Amino acid sequence: MASEASPGRAGDPRPGGRPKRYESLAADLAASIRSGAFQPGSRMPSVRTLTAERGLSASTVFQAYYLLEAQGLIRARERSGYFVAHGVRLPPPELNTASQPEDEAVGLDIADHVFGVLESAMHRQLVPLGSAFLSPTLFPLQRLGRALASGIQDLDPWSTVDDLTPGDAALRRQIALRYLTGGLHVQTDDIVITNGALEALNLCLSTVARPGDAILIESPTFYAALQSLERMQVEAIEVRTDPREGMDLDALEHAIRRHRPKACWLMTNFQNPLGSLMPAAKKKALVELLTRHDVPLIEDDVYGELYFGHQRPVPAKHFDTAGIVMHCSSFSKSLAPGYRVGWVAAGRYAREVARQKLTTTLASPAPTQMAIASYLEKGGYDKHLRKLRGILQAQQVQFAQAVGHYFPPGTRATRPAGGYFLWIELPQGVDALQIHQQALSHGISIAPGPIFSAKRDFANYLRLNYGHPWDPRMEAAVQTLGKLVSIAGK
Amino acid sequence: MASEASPGRAGDPRPGGRPKRYESLAADLAASIRSGAFQPGSRMPSVRTLTAERGLSASTVFQAYYLLEAQGLIRARERSGYFVAHGVRLPPPELNTASQPEDEAVGLDIADHVFGVLESAMHRQLVPLGSAFLSPTLFPLQRLGRALASGIQDLDPWSTVDDLTPGDAALRRQIALRYLTGGLHVQTDDIVITNGALEALNLCLSTVARPGDAILIESPTFYAALQSLERMQVEAIEVRTDPREGMDLDALEHAIRRHRPKACWLMTNFQNPLGSLMPAAKKKALVELLTRHDVPLIEDDVYGELYFGHQRPVPAKHFDTAGIVMHCSSFSKSLAPGYRVGWVAAGRYAREVARQKLTTTLASPAPTQMAIASYLEKGGYDKHLRKLRGILQAQQVQFAQAVGHYFPPGTRATRPAGGYFLWIELPQGVDALQIHQQALSHGISIAPGPIFSAKRDFANYLRLNYGHPWDPRMEAAVQTLGKLVSIAGK
Repeated sequence: MASEASPGRAGDPRPGGRPKRYESLAADLAASIRSGAFQPGSRMPSVRTLTAERGLSASTVFQAYYLLEAQGLIRARERSGYFVAHGVRLPPPELNTASQPEDEAVGLDIADHVFGVLESAMHRQLVPLGSAFLSPTLFPLQRLGRALASGIQDLDPWSTVDDLTPGDAALRRQIALRYLTGGLHVQTDDIVITNGALEALNLCLSTVARPGDAILIESPTFYAALQSLERMQVEAIEVRTDPREGMDLDALEHAIRRHRPKACWLMTNFQNPLGSLMPAAKKKALVELLTRHDVPLIEDDVYGELYFGHQRPVPAKHFDTAGIVMHCSSFSKSLAPGYRVGWVAAGRYAREVARQKLTTTLASPAPTQMAIASYLEKGGYDKHLRKLRGILQAQQVQFAQAVGHYFPPGTRATRPAGGYFLWIELPQGVDALQIHQQALSHGISIAPGPIFSAKRDFANYLRLNYGHPWDPRMEAAVQTLGKLVSIAGK
Repeated sequence: MASEASPGRAGDPRPGGRPKRYESLAADLAASIRSGAFQPGSRMPSVRTLTAERGLSASTVFQAYYLLEAQGLIRARERSGYFVAHGVRLPPPELNTASQPEDEAVGLDIADHVFGVLESAMHRQLVPLGSAFLSPTLFPLQRLGRALASGIQDLDPWSTVDDLTPGDAALRRQIALRYLTGGLHVQTDDIVITNGALEALNLCLSTVARPGDAILIESPTFYAALQSLERMQVEAIEVRTDPREGMDLDALEHAIRRHRPKACWLMTNFQNPLGSLMPAAKKKALVELLTRHDVPLIEDDVYGELYFGHQRPVPAKHFDTAGIVMHCSSFSKSLAPGYRVGWVAAGRYAREVARQKLTTTLASPAPTQMAIASYLEKGGYDKHLRKLRGILQAQQVQFAQAVGHYFPPGTRATRPAGGYFLWIELPQGVDALQIHQQALSHGISIAPGPIFSAKRDFANYLRLNYGHPWDPRMEAAVQTLGKLVSIAGK
């Protein structure tokens, strides 16, 4: 896990495994088509050209073209070679410019606004484009249920009062084992089981910050972080963040020197809402920078398992030699939504985090922890994850292409290498909050940009969830949104 | 549920049901014997006397005496009547004097102390006299497990993301139904499911208080409340509390006028550690007083189902017309330890409490909520509770008698009408923290008095848990404690 493979931005047909050469080539070409570098109707490079340029055999190139043809992206014309298919839907241009937040500490007053937006969107019958969750149909809930049912019959009654905090010992061992598989040594005793990652993040925050302290966050940032900061009465400093590579380290260092923050709270892998993936070398530099200034890192890594590349991206925790990184994650996005099993590997703060847990919720439930420990022991998690990643990657393509097709010019979108969110920039002047209201009246939820910012910036942005199966209802919803945005942009 | 039956302090053989006349008489007489009002070897009142005094038939009195004889409390001597048996173990004299805390706001600095004491006592092999938990063998864990197993197979995947906050709708309906059975109308929508009662209490506190605010608590008070107050950086005002009837309302009103508190946090039923039961009329007066001064009440009622009388004592919430009472409880002490299912009926604060939950732990796990809802729907909870109460009441007698037998003169103990704690006053000068250390080296845990006080008062007090089966190991532990206390008192 010393370095990361390139994340394979688009079209990799074998997520999680090392692709064959023709698959890699096909993925590259598909990306070029989808990015608009090769326009519909235009001629694809000849087999001879590609053979020469890439140092591949002709048969590899042919295999790649057969694959692209099968995917409907190109058409062969007799004696003329391959052409980009007409009717190929292109995603919108890539949103690749970093945010420009003001460098100042902000007292938060966003929670009511966020609640207002979220509560209006909490209805099962809405098309869940604004949801924060994956479709629950993507998870092995039956198998987990069996693990729960069989585990509970062997329950040692004393386990209901033992191991209360920091959590089920077998589960903590399984989590430590997964860290180890990833090349990271985490002591079982440094792991505290929590009620989902959100509790972990909150425990970390209250361990290192007091009211009035300054906390560094990304821009945009996940609204739940804003709500937590507001509840804790700390000040937020939003730091410039790149949609591809995450928080800007120069801006970060500047903010550290100016604001003397008590912590930095961010998502290194497939950030919500940007989908940014901080490269490994940058993560290393991040941890070194924070260590130098003695600023603890609260690392939210709930999406790390949902990568489309060939290897799980390492967390920043991987480079932590001083114990300053509190690595928070959960099984809610990857295995067991509704079980609310998360954890934190809290380094030098582990004992204090456990005490915070003890005095806030005492402990997490025993049965759900047992079920996940038992599921992990029996194997099958990685197989499930491979399948899930493949589905999400394919859905990203479908959703992005539909956005490109239905949304007006001036729309841009991120191309995350994992997770299940697109962050979409609408044409200047379009008000995402207004689109949100209109969309609700059409039975569609979205997550408007301003809820991701302490200062309610990102007025013309929205987050779109592609974690639900693509179907005619989704198609119609994206089409409706596109119409609403087009009208608003006029 | 308009009024409470007398709680039947000792020897009631039919907890939960209306006793027959001879049973009531036997219980009264047993209480007198155990209190020392009738000394071993002394003559019991004649049948004629009792018949005349109590307006009972001679046959009722005879039946009561036969029962007491069967219990080994009295012996018949031919032609001389009944005598208190020699060898009857008497409990220590009743501790019935109220605490005398200083009327001042205290910034808390107790958590490290409490953690130190508790962590040293967290080993399964210790005799758990210091534990806060009931023996897990007292719960229907197998039946709950079956409810969990069958429920999870019928799981609607969407339920893992629906109903997140405020919690499973079926469970909230069941809880509202139990309130209704008790004569209390609580809207399902006002109930928020939490991770045990501790989370409920903390959510309530953070809903109404900010750092620096003053909060009224009992003296002594449950150490977890002290830890929560310290974490929240609020000030504690300890209010005079009576071991039988709970917080003193005159002292409370005085403290309200002087300190302008943001909340009052207390246990109305079988307070931890005192075991006090606030009479219904006093609860009514309490709520009226707090309503008059607009001080919210955070009511911790986790022990309310563990009554030894004939009817569940009402919560203070019963008298709440203005919505100021946040009634917190859980199934952890009465049905399902380790499931961590609690709730709060938060009156006018329900919406804000739900938001606090949403931003701290998001939601409680679905499977455990489903299991308890399903268990409650199928019935059997009340039957389980009747059995549990009978066991606890019998165990209280055994533990109290052993304390009376082994502890030195100068020892006093409460006689709670429910719950599973004795609060024991040791002779003046005995240091409970020292006893705690010595007891640990003998493989015994206790809960020393100072952890129940913001100012570490109650130096010569300890809390003893009688919620584990009485057996020779317990007998030996109480004997050892008695020796340690005797030596320390010399």
